[in-house]
Amino acid sequence: MTELIEKIKREGQRLPGGILKVDSFLNHQVDMGLMKRIGESFAEFFSPMKPDKVLTIESSGIAPAGMTALCLKVPLVVMKKQNSAISDAERFGVNVRSFTKGLDYELTISKKYLAKDERVVFVDDFLAMGEAALGVHDIVTQAEAELLGIGIVIEKSFQPGRGKLDALNIPVYSLARISHMSETALEFIE
Amino acid sequence: MTELIEKIKREGQRLPGGILKVDSFLNHQVDMGLMKRIGESFAEFFSPMKPDKVLTIESSGIAPAGMTALCLKVPLVVMKKQNSAISDAERFGVNVRSFTKGLDYELTISKKYLAKDERVVFVDDFLAMGEAALGVHDIVTQAEAELLGIGIVIEKSFQPGRGKLDALNIPVYSLARISHMSETALEFIE
Repeated sequence: MTELIEKIKREGQRLPGGILKVDSFLNHQVDMGLMKRIGESFAEFFSPMKPDKVLTIESSGIAPAGMTALCLKVPLVVMKKQNSAISDAERFGVNVRSFTKGLDYELTISKKYLAKDERVVFVDDFLAMGEAALGVHDIVTQAEAELLGIGIVIEKSFQPGRGKLDALNIPVYSLARISHMSETALEFIE
Repeated sequence: MTELIEKIKREGQRLPGGILKVDSFLNHQVDMGLMKRIGESFAEFFSPMKPDKVLTIESSGIAPAGMTALCLKVPLVVMKKQNSAISDAERFGVNVRSFTKGLDYELTISKKYLAKDERVVFVDDFLAMGEAALGVHDIVTQAEAELLGIGIVIEKSFQPGRGKLDALNIPVYSLARISHMSETALEFIE
């Protein structure tokens, strides 16, 4: 997605540790016009798969995933990040390691909003190590639902997340794929 | 907003302690079509005030506030909840008491995204005790920006938040106003 790649080049801040900060349009200030076009792009890709729901994780996934759900005319379900494991009879839960923040969290979803045989797509802001996406795959498996595919705004293709999802045969549709990033360089897979 | 009030009557769960759970369309599963109509309603109200930005608080405010920002064609800024006070030279911060969750959090915003003399509106999912809204008012005052008004999806009019904001002369536009709530009754201000 050219508009997104240009925006990353212009406004993205490259921090030590392979962190890309896109606070000006995605993670703190949010460009909703861009989110609308991102949602349209995801919806075009996922629409033939006939999903029942769009899943995302609070809070940076909500804007792009919400616009996708709006375009697809299906509900959005926002999975919660908890500090402690509270999965119980009413919830599915999985432990997820966040490398960016250097801590674990419990990802949860109410059993009311993820039913057996439901067809879902997962939309998130970043794909790097793939831990969040694998956690969602685990939760969808617990629910005996079906993960049709994953939509990612910015993929760090030089990190192992994409490979892990490819190995599970989960279709991943990323709008910007960064092949190389350093303090002086930023390259995309065209 | 009739559609919203009907949805609250049909799907809202009344829990002890005056808590209204609207997990099926606002706080966990999200009805994006409804969020779009909520955003259009807020935008119609706020448009004559010519806001530069829409502010909200992660994460349940993001969907309705994002749709409002999209309609108004202005950026959304998502204020962060932190566990510890990290306001510093780069951020405005304020301590907020959450009565629902029974704990305090630090509400923060980067100084990059709230500038002197900017005209902002704040959109949130609930207004009850008014602590979050007063925190936003405090942050906007720190920034020497201007809080033009507040848009609320569900106002618990039987709690003191609305009165506190009225006392500050801040225009509050609420789409559903609950005048009375108990385990057996749910009444709205028409």
